[in-house]
Amino acid sequence: MGDLVERLAQGLPEGAVVVDPDVVASYARDMAGFCAAGVPAVLVLPRTVEQVQHVLRTATDLRVPVVPQGARTGLSGGANAVDGCIVLSLVAMDRILEIDPVNRLAVVEPGVVNAVLSRAVAEHGLAYPPDPSSWESCTIGGNIGTGAGGLCCVKYGVTAEYVLGLDVVLADGRLLRTGRRTAKGVAGYDLTRLLVGSEGTLGVVVQAVLALRPEPAPPLVLAAEFAATEAACAAVCEVMAGGFAPSLMELMDATTVRAVNEMAAMGLPESTRALLLVAFDGPDQAAEVAAVAELCRAAGATEVVPAEDRAESELLLQARRLALPALDRMGTTMIDDVAVPRSRLADMLAGVARIAERGRLTIGVVSHAGDGNTHPVVVFDASDPEETARAEHSFEEIMALGLELGGTVTGEHGIGLLKRDWLARELGPVGLELQRQIKSVFDPLGILNPGKTL
Amino acid sequence: MGDLVERLAQGLPEGAVVVDPDVVASYARDMAGFCAAGVPAVLVLPRTVEQVQHVLRTATDLRVPVVPQGARTGLSGGANAVDGCIVLSLVAMDRILEIDPVNRLAVVEPGVVNAVLSRAVAEHGLAYPPDPSSWESCTIGGNIGTGAGGLCCVKYGVTAEYVLGLDVVLADGRLLRTGRRTAKGVAGYDLTRLLVGSEGTLGVVVQAVLALRPEPAPPLVLAAEFAATEAACAAVCEVMAGGFAPSLMELMDATTVRAVNEMAAMGLPESTRALLLVAFDGPDQAAEVAAVAELCRAAGATEVVPAEDRAESELLLQARRLALPALDRMGTTMIDDVAVPRSRLADMLAGVARIAERGRLTIGVVSHAGDGNTHPVVVFDASDPEETARAEHSFEEIMALGLELGGTVTGEHGIGLLKRDWLARELGPVGLELQRQIKSVFDPLGILNPGKTL
Repeated sequence: MGDLVERLAQGLPEGAVVVDPDVVASYARDMAGFCAAGVPAVLVLPRTVEQVQHVLRTATDLRVPVVPQGARTGLSGGANAVDGCIVLSLVAMDRILEIDPVNRLAVVEPGVVNAVLSRAVAEHGLAYPPDPSSWESCTIGGNIGTGAGGLCCVKYGVTAEYVLGLDVVLADGRLLRTGRRTAKGVAGYDLTRLLVGSEGTLGVVVQAVLALRPEPAPPLVLAAEFAATEAACAAVCEVMAGGFAPSLMELMDATTVRAVNEMAAMGLPESTRALLLVAFDGPDQAAEVAAVAELCRAAGATEVVPAEDRAESELLLQARRLALPALDRMGTTMIDDVAVPRSRLADMLAGVARIAERGRLTIGVVSHAGDGNTHPVVVFDASDPEETARAEHSFEEIMALGLELGGTVTGEHGIGLLKRDWLARELGPVGLELQRQIKSVFDPLGILNPGKTL
Repeated sequence: MGDLVERLAQGLPEGAVVVDPDVVASYARDMAGFCAAGVPAVLVLPRTVEQVQHVLRTATDLRVPVVPQGARTGLSGGANAVDGCIVLSLVAMDRILEIDPVNRLAVVEPGVVNAVLSRAVAEHGLAYPPDPSSWESCTIGGNIGTGAGGLCCVKYGVTAEYVLGLDVVLADGRLLRTGRRTAKGVAGYDLTRLLVGSEGTLGVVVQAVLALRPEPAPPLVLAAEFAATEAACAAVCEVMAGGFAPSLMELMDATTVRAVNEMAAMGLPESTRALLLVAFDGPDQAAEVAAVAELCRAAGATEVVPAEDRAESELLLQARRLALPALDRMGTTMIDDVAVPRSRLADMLAGVARIAERGRLTIGVVSHAGDGNTHPVVVFDASDPEETARAEHSFEEIMALGLELGGTVTGEHGIGLLKRDWLARELGPVGLELQRQIKSVFDPLGILNPGKTL
């Protein structure tokens, strides 16, 4: 290990190689529960592409595993350390290199925080749409690694759709440039897209060309309360089948509504089994809100509150923002991430309710309903081993249910450590074998984030 | 070869194995010029996934190359036969299996014609946006193979963005299922996207899950004439930097305008050096057309014609529809496909004009200007070997210019045979090596569309 640290220090500036055990240990894991983390050998915080190349060359020479990290806000253990690894934190590479309004793109280093980029491009009348809940702290590099989503995806899509090109340091230290700066391009296999969502197992992103969009109008929001989950899900389907393009469509279940009510005294009636929030940000937003309000009433909503302005819209969105904090107050939480075809959303929610009952657990579900992307949040007492085991079991049952309904075990959080076994089930043997062979092409020694994803 | 035909016939129905030399020869090439085509051994027209698997298993057993084909409307030679190959035409697998308005997706076989799908989904109020010029005859499988674009991409993106999942027969006959039926999903490496645009070199697409969108309003179009190309390109940049989202933004250069004028007596003034067409299909389209008309006038347009209704819009689009036919009347044409950052569009057009002058050739340029995607059309006398050589040289110079301006050698037509040497230049050695290794993972014997792309 002395040799490793010495070799790393030869190509990195003072302070960029950290061996203090307490500091190093504090970089051992991301925010996922139910995931083991190893003890890293050393933490490095490079500031340049060349420094990252030096780290990877050293790792290859000494056959030491490398775990790339952003802000460690991930929820699947993808950034967790393995024993004896180099933790390669990219947070110090945090420069926005370029914002280009004519070509509607930005060039950034991986450590740029999502919200910092969003604010910077807003000054040019532009938007970088992907907006994971952790957007105030998560990094663009981390977003690219996990293929992060967010609340706006129902209209604007996920991270992958905004990555035009990447600079990537490969396992052996070589620099790969993928993609383009043009709006279109089909030259060769799409390595850019292959790397997005690869969770640091194929290479280390050191620069990204990101597509931007014109900044939309502030959203106008509608809240609808339903006395039955099925009615709320039916409304979701009708909105999408009706040709609407909401910029947000979130559904909170009865457990979540109750938790939010208890925390913030929102005054939602006890009878509310589901709260649907729908937003529009186009030029017709007032008419769209009115039309969807009518649709919700016809679908059986017990109360429909269309916001009249931006301030009222913000107020309605508060309920959604408080959902996870409110569930967190009830115990240790473990957030799942299963996406199903939106036509199966009602079946998914009914199934999760059954799983909660069977497991004698509280499970609140918040959903990006327009995408069919559910986040069942399992609440349990982590000091009770028996209850913890039940929670883990329910968590697994939720993924099995998702696959059964034609869905995927991860809509936007990634596989990491948490869902490795499930990836194999979802891909099947042929897909799994090809994915492993692709991993070997990029990382023949298996030093890049070993044990993750595949 | 007797053995090959016999083995193929064992797993294919009567009539699906064609050996008639004239028929087989008629399947030898797509629509690209400057590309060699070999003599196929046999043509097969399977109707089921199992039959495609049988073809690939047979090809693997006998080490015979397989060239997958759609409607052969491609423009890069990607579907051209190689000597002794099996031409695997997917046109008989032409069923639309499902249209699902709630989940906004369609499931189709590869031989479905783009326009057939577009009309079928329109009946449900939905749209499949990618609209290559050949949309009345090209197939979805071919669109997926080349990563096809079209006129609407400036707002709606290219084929890749509408492919959610694929069923693919691998070189050895195994069936791979990639992707999902959900709006979101990040489970494992994105093999779907890797396969889109891979031009039949990694596998044979036998089924696709496609994302659909709500059908937009019919476009409202604006035409603007400019006396200088630079002014037209500046207007393009201002429209995009101004936050507009046109559903079409096409630019025709002076040569193209003259050709259209001569063919159809459109009455465009001789002084017109550039004709810009801009369309909007959102709820604010009238206001947007008015605003862009004003912007074009300020940018120096000599004449601005905003359509007042759908009929007038159709009339204005006629000029664009006639562009390629009009150039085709002037001689043999070879259409290029180079995309540059839209801020470099003026440099690209000026450079092509210089190349035309140097080569003593007519080169008309039609551009998907909003995407910076130019189609310089080189017109030459194919019976004159010296002029043909000059045309080929100019064609190459256009690609070199594109790369020099930070662009790509193919915005939407693919690499095929035509641009193979250029792909290596665009990717660089590291990217090229990785792409070749990925090819080997999928096709270790090298029987799938050999000699194409890489």
